Amino acid sequence: MTGPPPAVAAVRVAVRRALADLEAGDLVLVACSGGPDSLALAAATAFVAPRAGLRAGGVTVDHGLQPGSAERAAQVAATLRGLGLDPVEDVAVTVAARGGPEGAARTARYAALETAADRHRAAAVLLGHTRDDQAETVLLRLARGSGARSLAGMAPSSGRYLRPLLELDRATVHTAATEMGFRPWIDPHNSDPSYARSRVRHDALPALERTLGPGIAAALARTASLLRDDADALDSWAEQAARDAEAPGEGLDVKVLADLPRAIRTRVLRRAAIAAGCPAGALTAGHVAGLERLVTRWRGQAHVDLPGGVAGRRVEGRIRFHG
Amino acid sequence: MTGPPPAVAAVRVAVRRALADLEAGDLVLVACSGGPDSLALAAATAFVAPRAGLRAGGVTVDHGLQPGSAERAAQVAATLRGLGLDPVEDVAVTVAARGGPEGAARTARYAALETAADRHRAAAVLLGHTRDDQAETVLLRLARGSGARSLAGMAPSSGRYLRPLLELDRATVHTAATEMGFRPWIDPHNSDPSYARSRVRHDALPALERTLGPGIAAALARTASLLRDDADALDSWAEQAARDAEAPGEGLDVKVLADLPRAIRTRVLRRAAIAAGCPAGALTAGHVAGLERLVTRWRGQAHVDLPGGVAGRRVEGRIRFHG
Repeated sequence: MTGPPPAVAAVRVAVRRALADLEAGDLVLVACSGGPDSLALAAATAFVAPRAGLRAGGVTVDHGLQPGSAERAAQVAATLRGLGLDPVEDVAVTVAARGGPEGAARTARYAALETAADRHRAAAVLLGHTRDDQAETVLLRLARGSGARSLAGMAPSSGRYLRPLLELDRATVHTAATEMGFRPWIDPHNSDPSYARSRVRHDALPALERTLGPGIAAALARTASLLRDDADALDSWAEQAARDAEAPGEGLDVKVLADLPRAIRTRVLRRAAIAAGCPAGALTAGHVAGLERLVTRWRGQAHVDLPGGVAGRRVEGRIRFHG
Repeated sequence: MTGPPPAVAAVRVAVRRALADLEAGDLVLVACSGGPDSLALAAATAFVAPRAGLRAGGVTVDHGLQPGSAERAAQVAATLRGLGLDPVEDVAVTVAARGGPEGAARTARYAALETAADRHRAAAVLLGHTRDDQAETVLLRLARGSGARSLAGMAPSSGRYLRPLLELDRATVHTAATEMGFRPWIDPHNSDPSYARSRVRHDALPALERTLGPGIAAALARTASLLRDDADALDSWAEQAARDAEAPGEGLDVKVLADLPRAIRTRVLRRAAIAAGCPAGALTAGHVAGLERLVTRWRGQAHVDLPGGVAGRRVEGRIRFHG
């Protein structure tokens, strides 16, 4: 008796681990683009789930962005059914014209996955992101000068979304897909240089490998995982500190804020500004630094203008926000 | 009356800010390689220090790695004296054959700076690192899969070392050097591709700029600064947690450790292992993960072997280390 080839075994082990906390009879839905990563994930899930007492289905999303995409989605759905997944859905979405093309497609895709998961009462939705996708995400976010939470990249588990392949490299997953007999379709967007992620994959990461030696993708993924732990710990501290500093409706006590380390003080101020109505995406480190100066460099300055028409000011030893 | 050109003004402002906390009569020593960054720093310090009631001197280190380096060091020292710095020292060091060439030169250089600073009772030693140097440092450390403290890069202030130019870009500092009349010597090592930092400067960073847009150096420096705050906060928490978990000579209480967020638990375990004799540089995330499993996945496993002949084991609800 011979086992499966090593790459197939690696993908199955990763899926088995990711599903370990689910309960017998639970349904997991694999989100599948028809690319090699998510096809390998689908096939491994079709193998692992029944042996773990779980049901496995699949969803493929037709973004309608390329000619023939509907036919392709139907083919992917047929492939998923052929693997024994049930239910299988083929969902067409309309990608908004607004926002970057990658962002708009992602928004439409997750909305469709949410709806499908709700309709089938799925306990988990499995996504095929690999360690290389994680490295690309970290590099894209580094270019924005991001903090720990952002550089933590994609979570292995977030709500009902699971990413079983996040610690496997793309080459292993592609090998597994081939060994499972797939001749996968490659999304032309993956090599379209008008997409930032594609430029990272085909230009930035290879340049880093050349310069700094192999293993850069693994290193970036390792950093992401360390920073995820850090961000979790700092957020839990900031939550407690916000409770200590806040009297409901009366803002934040400057004395409590002043005693906190800056990393926590800025997180507490940021949360409070968002709670007061600032759009999180528009609130920059510069805005938060302005709020911080009300605490640490107080010399009677005026209010700090924040996005969303919110203003922060210091009144009688408290930082208060007004919409 | 016209002021200095903008780049010169920017460098002087940066130096003035960095020196703001010193006391009248204090001596600051500028570490100067003769490159444009540290020459601009030296000239700005010669201008700013006397106006702030401070004394300013200079040190240049001859690493003896290139033919004619002694003559060059003497020229740099003469330039520093010409700027009005006093005292000025020209120190020859012997770079150890062991370790990477960059690391060994750095070790010898800092030892010489320490000695000079002690001898002259300097209150501060000024280093000419710019925002671009910081970005290169962050990128070099990213390639190792580092955590927050490492990615925090170089500190603007650490003990008596100050880096006044850390928020200025290299182009501005080079412009200032030219405007101050220097025709700076460029260290040939800076473009030698056998040096990792040189490869980062001439290959990796330009590739990232091409791929992700301009501003990547500024973004990396911003990330470093955020992560420095994060690492400070996490270290202060870990210090407190270690005191809570430890009974002298009896190791760390597993119950206290189990309740901590992972980022803190791993920091406490790492510190305890180092305190027990593990060489910090040899202790990997993998070793710490092994120690962590004694806490979070206890199933009676044996001791964990650590570098430096140390072993960590769980005994009666405590993690203990034995050399």
